[in-house]
Amino acid sequence: MTHRSVVLRRRPAGVPVPEDFEVVEARQEPLADAHVRVENVAISLDAGFRHWMNEGAGDHVLPAMQIGDPVMGLTVGRVVDSRHGSFAEGDVVVARLGWQEVATFNGDTQLIKIRVDNRLQVDLAAHLGILGDTGLSAYFGLFDHGRPVAGETVLVSAAAGAVGNVAGQMAKILGCRVVGITSDENKARFLTETLGFDATINRRGDVDAQLSATCPTGVDVYFDNVGGRVLETVLDHLALGARIALCGAVATYNDSEKAPGPSNLFNLVTKQATMTGFLTHYSHDRYEEARDKIIDWMNDGRLVNVEHRLHGIENVGRAFCDMFNGKNLGKTLVELKPTSAVAH
Amino acid sequence: MTHRSVVLRRRPAGVPVPEDFEVVEARQEPLADAHVRVENVAISLDAGFRHWMNEGAGDHVLPAMQIGDPVMGLTVGRVVDSRHGSFAEGDVVVARLGWQEVATFNGDTQLIKIRVDNRLQVDLAAHLGILGDTGLSAYFGLFDHGRPVAGETVLVSAAAGAVGNVAGQMAKILGCRVVGITSDENKARFLTETLGFDATINRRGDVDAQLSATCPTGVDVYFDNVGGRVLETVLDHLALGARIALCGAVATYNDSEKAPGPSNLFNLVTKQATMTGFLTHYSHDRYEEARDKIIDWMNDGRLVNVEHRLHGIENVGRAFCDMFNGKNLGKTLVELKPTSAVAH
Repeated sequence: MTHRSVVLRRRPAGVPVPEDFEVVEARQEPLADAHVRVENVAISLDAGFRHWMNEGAGDHVLPAMQIGDPVMGLTVGRVVDSRHGSFAEGDVVVARLGWQEVATFNGDTQLIKIRVDNRLQVDLAAHLGILGDTGLSAYFGLFDHGRPVAGETVLVSAAAGAVGNVAGQMAKILGCRVVGITSDENKARFLTETLGFDATINRRGDVDAQLSATCPTGVDVYFDNVGGRVLETVLDHLALGARIALCGAVATYNDSEKAPGPSNLFNLVTKQATMTGFLTHYSHDRYEEARDKIIDWMNDGRLVNVEHRLHGIENVGRAFCDMFNGKNLGKTLVELKPTSAVAH
Repeated sequence: MTHRSVVLRRRPAGVPVPEDFEVVEARQEPLADAHVRVENVAISLDAGFRHWMNEGAGDHVLPAMQIGDPVMGLTVGRVVDSRHGSFAEGDVVVARLGWQEVATFNGDTQLIKIRVDNRLQVDLAAHLGILGDTGLSAYFGLFDHGRPVAGETVLVSAAAGAVGNVAGQMAKILGCRVVGITSDENKARFLTETLGFDATINRRGDVDAQLSATCPTGVDVYFDNVGGRVLETVLDHLALGARIALCGAVATYNDSEKAPGPSNLFNLVTKQATMTGFLTHYSHDRYEEARDKIIDWMNDGRLVNVEHRLHGIENVGRAFCDMFNGKNLGKTLVELKPTSAVAH
């Protein structure tokens, strides 16, 4: 009884390449007491996990990944065997079970059971995307930390990305003017024509001039997924009382040395502005509230689920690397084929 | 009829020196319609004004200072002549009337009348310090933006300075553990022995190691007056949910080029932390509330007014320069002698 895993072959130097990862056959261990065996249905690709691939990156949030271990990543799957009282065969769980077809974990600490909502016809993989960390990050980041009100200008970076497109759509639902920063014209067209963004900025162009043109009264809310130089430029365009929600900093994840931060942080003082970082799991007790809202908006046709799906665990490594080339639109997921290793 | 002013002789290159300023005799102009003449009683010295001495530093907050003009600065004084209906001889006003013995300004835009509170025996100059922008910055920065609760660890930089010592004392009144960062052992002793701070950190030493020792559970609130490298180091010691109130950045005011910002801003994300800049004048409608609290605490003997007073306008320039050498304890004020130029 074997299954396939993708392990960290070596630590990426800068931008990850497919050779940093390797598909291996893994033997299935006997199920220990209090443990649960899960067959993963899909793997979520999240640029943020790049951070913990570095040597010594372990912190209070996550441990550093180890060479030879399955790569850490969020998955959704079905319980196929359980020696834990809280989980039964058939339960759907979302957890950080790694890039593996089958995973065995301690049910006390690792698994989150998902109530599958019958109001919405989505498959299980959506619980990694718009109904999972991606959608929840957009929701809590925008509403709790960005705190926009109708009519304000909301700027989103990596706006065609997994979290950015959802944050921008939510700001539109609220009645804001939404400007998206993205990296190419195809994405820009998608944001304005399909998702209803009011304007876009190409981050490869003169961001400062484009900000002056598209946000003439300043940026009230900046939902930031990239950090780095774009953040520094935006700090010169804040409206009085601006709120910056720091969701991530994809621009810096691959730096081997820490890049300097914005030289103009003092603008926070003169604009009485706030910058707040957040991790969605600190809002765990409000996941259901957020999911209910997201499902309502999807059912009303106001929130579009933008996904890029690949198939087969052999494609996970390459798909992860592609994220840093800005090739994908929306949430990137890899669906797994049912394995022959697990009877069900 | 003449009075003395201190004008900007040239723009400081880096740290200001006394030769950047010059005392001049100025002629008293006739009082135009809607204008008010004020005899200044004291001048406040505020490091933050250094910023607007730079070429092209004008922004939405203040214009850049001009060479040959009286240096911008906050003053408290008495109206000695008025052609404006809202002001009468004898009124006390706090305003940005500059380093001048006598100033003439438009009463519609420039002057703030002060209600002199009889509950407290302080002289007028205190309205530039603990009852003025200094005390109000500590109050609004700490309570609105730092939002400490009893038992939390509050860290204050430039803790023996004008705003810092007040913020630290207020956090003690609230029941917090207060740690002050300062630049020498005399100041450190004053903070712990006279003001009741729990611990101090010498910023000329190993700040990182001292933070580990004095804030073992992390910093819940950082009241920051200095920015720069100290801010970067503190960002590595945040407690979960930390709040940073950015009051100023004295470490960077003298830089001719903008220094890079903190390279570890991403810590705001992993600690779900907030960084908020503020300017006290945006809380103008709550000045009375804050002053009442401050007066009560002073009357109860729980809040000590720490001042460094000099005398005579000829000393303003040198006193301003000394602030950047970290020589002063508490609020620096220059009291002016009544001039012979004004009859009253």
